[in-house]
Amino acid sequence: MAMKATRAVQRILSNYEADNPGVKGNLCRMLMTGKLGGTGKMIILPVDQGFEHGPARSFAPNPAAYDPHYHYQLAIDAGLNAFAAPLGMLEAGADTFAGQIPTILKANSANSLIPSEAPKDQAITASVDDALRLGCSAIGFTIYPGSSAGLEMFEEISQMREEAAAKGVATVIWSYPRGEALTKDGETAIDIAAYATQIAALLGAHVIKVKLSTDHLELKEARKVYEGEKIDISTQAARVADCVKSAFNGRRIIVFSGGSKKGADSVYDDARAIRDGGGNGSIIGRNTFQRPREDALDMLGKLVDIYRGKA
Amino acid sequence: MAMKATRAVQRILSNYEADNPGVKGNLCRMLMTGKLGGTGKMIILPVDQGFEHGPARSFAPNPAAYDPHYHYQLAIDAGLNAFAAPLGMLEAGADTFAGQIPTILKANSANSLIPSEAPKDQAITASVDDALRLGCSAIGFTIYPGSSAGLEMFEEISQMREEAAAKGVATVIWSYPRGEALTKDGETAIDIAAYATQIAALLGAHVIKVKLSTDHLELKEARKVYEGEKIDISTQAARVADCVKSAFNGRRIIVFSGGSKKGADSVYDDARAIRDGGGNGSIIGRNTFQRPREDALDMLGKLVDIYRGKA
Amino acid sequence: MAMKATRAVQRILSNYEADNPGVKGNLCRMLMTGKLGGTGKMIILPVDQGFEHGPARSFAPNPAAYDPHYHYQLAIDAGLNAFAAPLGMLEAGADTFAGQIPTILKANSANSLIPSEAPKDQAITASVDDALRLGCSAIGFTIYPGSSAGLEMFEEISQMREEAAAKGVATVIWSYPRGEALTKDGETAIDIAAYATQIAALLGAHVIKVKLSTDHLELKEARKVYEGEKIDISTQAARVADCVKSAFNGRRIIVFSGGSKKGADSVYDDARAIRDGGGNGSIIGRNTFQRPREDALDMLGKLVDIYRGKA
Amino acid sequence: MAMKATRAVQRILSNYEADNPGVKGNLCRMLMTGKLGGTGKMIILPVDQGFEHGPARSFAPNPAAYDPHYHYQLAIDAGLNAFAAPLGMLEAGADTFAGQIPTILKANSANSLIPSEAPKDQAITASVDDALRLGCSAIGFTIYPGSSAGLEMFEEISQMREEAAAKGVATVIWSYPRGEALTKDGETAIDIAAYATQIAALLGAHVIKVKLSTDHLELKEARKVYEGEKIDISTQAARVADCVKSAFNGRRIIVFSGGSKKGADSVYDDARAIRDGGGNGSIIGRNTFQRPREDALDMLGKLVDIYRGKA
Amino acid sequence: MAMKATRAVQRILSNYEADNPGVKGNLCRMLMTGKLGGTGKMIILPVDQGFEHGPARSFAPNPAAYDPHYHYQLAIDAGLNAFAAPLGMLEAGADTFAGQIPTILKANSANSLIPSEAPKDQAITASVDDALRLGCSAIGFTIYPGSSAGLEMFEEISQMREEAAAKGVATVIWSYPRGEALTKDGETAIDIAAYATQIAALLGAHVIKVKLSTDHLELKEARKVYEGEKIDISTQAARVADCVKSAFNGRRIIVFSGGSKKGADSVYDDARAIRDGGGNGSIIGRNTFQRPREDALDMLGKLVDIYRGKA
Repeated sequence: MAMKATRAVQRILSNYEADNPGVKGNLCRMLMTGKLGGTGKMIILPVDQGFEHGPARSFAPNPAAYDPHYHYQLAIDAGLNAFAAPLGMLEAGADTFAGQIPTILKANSANSLIPSEAPKDQAITASVDDALRLGCSAIGFTIYPGSSAGLEMFEEISQMREEAAAKGVATVIWSYPRGEALTKDGETAIDIAAYATQIAALLGAHVIKVKLSTDHLELKEARKVYEGEKIDISTQAARVADCVKSAFNGRRIIVFSGGSKKGADSVYDDARAIRDGGGNGSIIGRNTFQRPREDALDMLGKLVDIYRGKA
Repeated sequence: MAMKATRAVQRILSNYEADNPGVKGNLCRMLMTGKLGGTGKMIILPVDQGFEHGPARSFAPNPAAYDPHYHYQLAIDAGLNAFAAPLGMLEAGADTFAGQIPTILKANSANSLIPSEAPKDQAITASVDDALRLGCSAIGFTIYPGSSAGLEMFEEISQMREEAAAKGVATVIWSYPRGEALTKDGETAIDIAAYATQIAALLGAHVIKVKLSTDHLELKEARKVYEGEKIDISTQAARVADCVKSAFNGRRIIVFSGGSKKGADSVYDDARAIRDGGGNGSIIGRNTFQRPREDALDMLGKLVDIYRGKA
Repeated sequence: MAMKATRAVQRILSNYEADNPGVKGNLCRMLMTGKLGGTGKMIILPVDQGFEHGPARSFAPNPAAYDPHYHYQLAIDAGLNAFAAPLGMLEAGADTFAGQIPTILKANSANSLIPSEAPKDQAITASVDDALRLGCSAIGFTIYPGSSAGLEMFEEISQMREEAAAKGVATVIWSYPRGEALTKDGETAIDIAAYATQIAALLGAHVIKVKLSTDHLELKEARKVYEGEKIDISTQAARVADCVKSAFNGRRIIVFSGGSKKGADSVYDDARAIRDGGGNGSIIGRNTFQRPREDALDMLGKLVDIYRGKA
Repeated sequence: MAMKATRAVQRILSNYEADNPGVKGNLCRMLMTGKLGGTGKMIILPVDQGFEHGPARSFAPNPAAYDPHYHYQLAIDAGLNAFAAPLGMLEAGADTFAGQIPTILKANSANSLIPSEAPKDQAITASVDDALRLGCSAIGFTIYPGSSAGLEMFEEISQMREEAAAKGVATVIWSYPRGEALTKDGETAIDIAAYATQIAALLGAHVIKVKLSTDHLELKEARKVYEGEKIDISTQAARVADCVKSAFNGRRIIVFSGGSKKGADSVYDDARAIRDGGGNGSIIGRNTFQRPREDALDMLGKLVDIYRGKA
Repeated sequence: MAMKATRAVQRILSNYEADNPGVKGNLCRMLMTGKLGGTGKMIILPVDQGFEHGPARSFAPNPAAYDPHYHYQLAIDAGLNAFAAPLGMLEAGADTFAGQIPTILKANSANSLIPSEAPKDQAITASVDDALRLGCSAIGFTIYPGSSAGLEMFEEISQMREEAAAKGVATVIWSYPRGEALTKDGETAIDIAAYATQIAALLGAHVIKVKLSTDHLELKEARKVYEGEKIDISTQAARVADCVKSAFNGRRIIVFSGGSKKGADSVYDDARAIRDGGGNGSIIGRNTFQRPREDALDMLGKLVDIYRGKA
């Protein structure tokens, strides 16, 4: 199963100049796996919605998805780069699918039962040693810039990232602006998305996950600069490019999430914008596992084509 | 005392694919013990009511129960699978009954003297090393999804579970929705019960303990899905089945608790619903030890028959 | 100085079936020391009032008591079972009186200068290693069931107890209901005293210290049971018996405190009630050291007689 | 530089009966140093005012005092027993003056920029290992009995003291009543000063530092005792004696601080009261280093004479 | 590349008398590097604005600055003494520029998305071991005297500094008065700036970074002293001198920051005041990297000339 990294992948890896071979090896493994293997593009299947929204909202539309094995198999059959899930779900298939697809251990989680007046926060529910034990390539961790718990979350991931990197495990940061400091529109504003990207990069994320954004500008001081410097934010591709720039001018892998289930065309348009803006790919959950398996495989096949520039 | 696991038990154990032989051995021990040994069904005697409600409310109706030995002996004589209690109670009989029945160290506890305005929470009152020292098969831990202390409780059990699993001790999570985010009816609503099951599974519980639920639906978003997808929640058995599905489609052992003391027929109906819905059994405390010993033994015998499909 | 444990003491020790020889040896040492040695009864001198109420209120009535040596000598001369005090006071005589009387290191303390609106809590002011270094037989620790700091105090003593027991040091829990959840009358109500006893037992206390109680019933749910089950709480001896029952039906040593200084007859009546209710003895501070030394010795001699059934 | 401890010093050291030779050696070193060496009396120079009040208020009246070396030299030239200061200041002269005067590392500090509504508290700014590394004889630590942060400060110094004592370093506790529980007058009331002394002694302080007090009585319960027992608090010497009694009847070294800069005669009167009341000496900062060096040396010489009974 | 320290540098290093050769070596390295090498003066490039203000506000005015390599190269080409940045940014160039310029790992950071009602605080986002791993000469840490989080920040840096110093890494403290205790004018008042300097020095900073100040006096007690002692604060140079005095009378290196982007002449005037007041140099970010590279190099060249006394 020896696998020589392509030039595209080598170029990406060369940007991780402070990382040890363990971390680079895991990044390489994710970049070289699946139908996009070697292109520098990635599609990741994340399944933490059972934690975030509960099992019925997540899996009842496609009941086969109640079973953790379903997701492992979907990710493998669709030729994705990696599968991300919380501890319990990964454990339920870790042996059956060992070595068949890179996994990302989602190490913190929120849920819909948290009292609404509590600060936006998540619980750490797994450790770096859990990731090693389960053969994961990376840990995943959500931060909420904008929450009064934000600084504490930054400290948590900083410590966990240090341990992970020392043990050869990569870190994926879900950088999701949320909390008292932001309006609802602000959570997806482009200035905030770019800022969230920058924070994840400065915290040492190897892979940054942010949401696609709107052309709203949330912060007055930022608005002045965007307008004064005439930064193009008129299209989704332009906004993706602004985030890529904020990921150390493209020195860090950045993938974008698609949000709740929606029409297939909309999903494809998102992917084209990510591709055209220079992003590294999609992290796409509900839009696949809430569809019947064949539909999901079709959609994922189409997304691969888009990232390969064929659709 | 060599004991070959039955097929039913082997099938259950095969779902714990990320666990070491120590944890599996302890799960096997609990599944192979007592009158239900080998069936894949379980009845567990939990005695933490002295902590939760005080000694008079718990034991005065049957004063022999003030003595910890009473409960060990009751669990043994009734042929149950395991006995669960807090540190002090286990210590008081750990030597006398060593090896005679699997024990579960209840590692956190609440009480009725906590000021009502405090967040719903429990105190950690025992450690994994206590469990090892006392020869326990598992630790037990309560979480309160819905409380503002919920995320912290998740972090506590995540850490304790990691240590326990590494040391070959299984983890039973009491997943009890409670707190500021929930109405009184919501605490036993089926959407919440299924969600509580899912959270325990994702946290890595080897055995999940939830309460039987009602057909109330608490969360608006969940109601939409239950109604839209026409999920059957009309009977207790159907609701048990929904929880079983939420336990990774049955890949995790799930037992149900019966609540406060009530009529025997009601207890039997509950057990039949658990059995018919595919649940793994009952965890039943006050309904047994608050009855005279002979009555309790009769009731437990009847429950065994129910789980064996004979009643 | 070899000393064979009496049958009465052996019977008590046999109840500590999960404890190592180190802990049992220290319990034995306390039970075999002094004029009550071997009877299974105990009188303990506690001197933490300098912390709780300040030096003038504690010692000015009998100024010799400002000197820590005074208390060591009083406990020795009166033939008591043990002397309990905070770190500084024990250190001031630990060498002079080494080996002459078992000591209990009071490991947490409150004081009268704490702002009244703060949660009822204590500071941990000594460690298990301090106890070992000073040759103590036990640590003493106060918990406040009923306080919003209660759960945290339970966690503190759980951890400290685990360390102490592993190192062969016994644990005495002062279980003092106090805090936002209780009325003033409730602090000494019998249902609360029995509950406080049960909590200490479940936390793993080797010796439980509670206050004598009144026939008040604080909790509505408990009142129903006490009245419904016709539990006798009409006399102090009956109430002591209810607490003894709540100490695992007598499997744990339980001693009672006398409160502030009062008439000698009242002190004697208390002791007779403790004896008649099956309690293990008295922990008595201000009523002795605030009296002139000779009066105190007389009183303690009389208490010994009462526990020996001679008065 | 061999130095045989005088009888007076040996008598003092004999009271520290639970301490190891390392701690006793450091106490001896402080007691045998300087012009009061061997008398059992001490004068200590503390310079933490730069932290507490800022540099201008502390040093501008005598600008030479901006330089840390100035204070080392002043303490040495005046023949004092020890020099106490925070980490940075000690480090700035630790090598130049190594071995020339015992030093006390002030391990926590407050400042005048703390928001006034915050609980009265200090930050820990140095460790026991810092003290060892810098060759200090003791650590110094402030507690605020009366503050809502008080219990936490007690826990901090208890832990630090345990580590220090184990490593042979003595502990000096600045026991300064302050916080929500006290009126302004209460902070210097004699009942509170005696209580503060007792708390420091019980926490295991080797040297206790309190402020001189007034004849105000703050706590109602204490007032009853002071009046009922006719405790003399009419003179400063009598109040010093009350504090000495509260320091385990003189078994612990107690020194008194003088407060803000004032007339020389007042400083001398204070010292005579300390001497006559049986206190061990003065800890005197602003009254020396805010005066010109020659004036300060004269004043300190006069204080030495007073403690030697010559003035 | 052997390099003999100049007399000026040796004189500075001799003030760090409690530090090990590791720390001194790193201070020496920073002082001997670049165009000011050997003069005892320093210019440092700090780039943490992406964290503090977001990427657009920081880098859009000069988009090349989105790339971390740009800043390394700018600092090297301009002949600066050191480059300071958060973890992610340093990692992105640590290998390419290894050994070419001393680096300072900014170990804590704030951001503009923190809810405004939260206490002024920062998150610790890197460790001392990260600094070692990345070959850094120092860690940088911001404290906010005046914030309710201030004491906690002091404790954080005290611990981190102890570890860093033990491992041979120097500590630079950004001492920025901010928070509930201060008015907006107070944040830059001279009494507050001098106080902030003193606090950093007492905490053990090897290099102190404060802002240039105004002649405003914030604290009433300080105002009395400044006016009473007639301390000159009429010019920026005089105010710099007051801060230098507060840095242990010049025993600690102190550099000043320039604030937001402004006219070049103003930048030069600041530098002359720093030089004339005896400060050690500038730490200058936005005023350089927000200008086109050639303009920035010109400005930095001019600043070098000023510190060399040639402009």
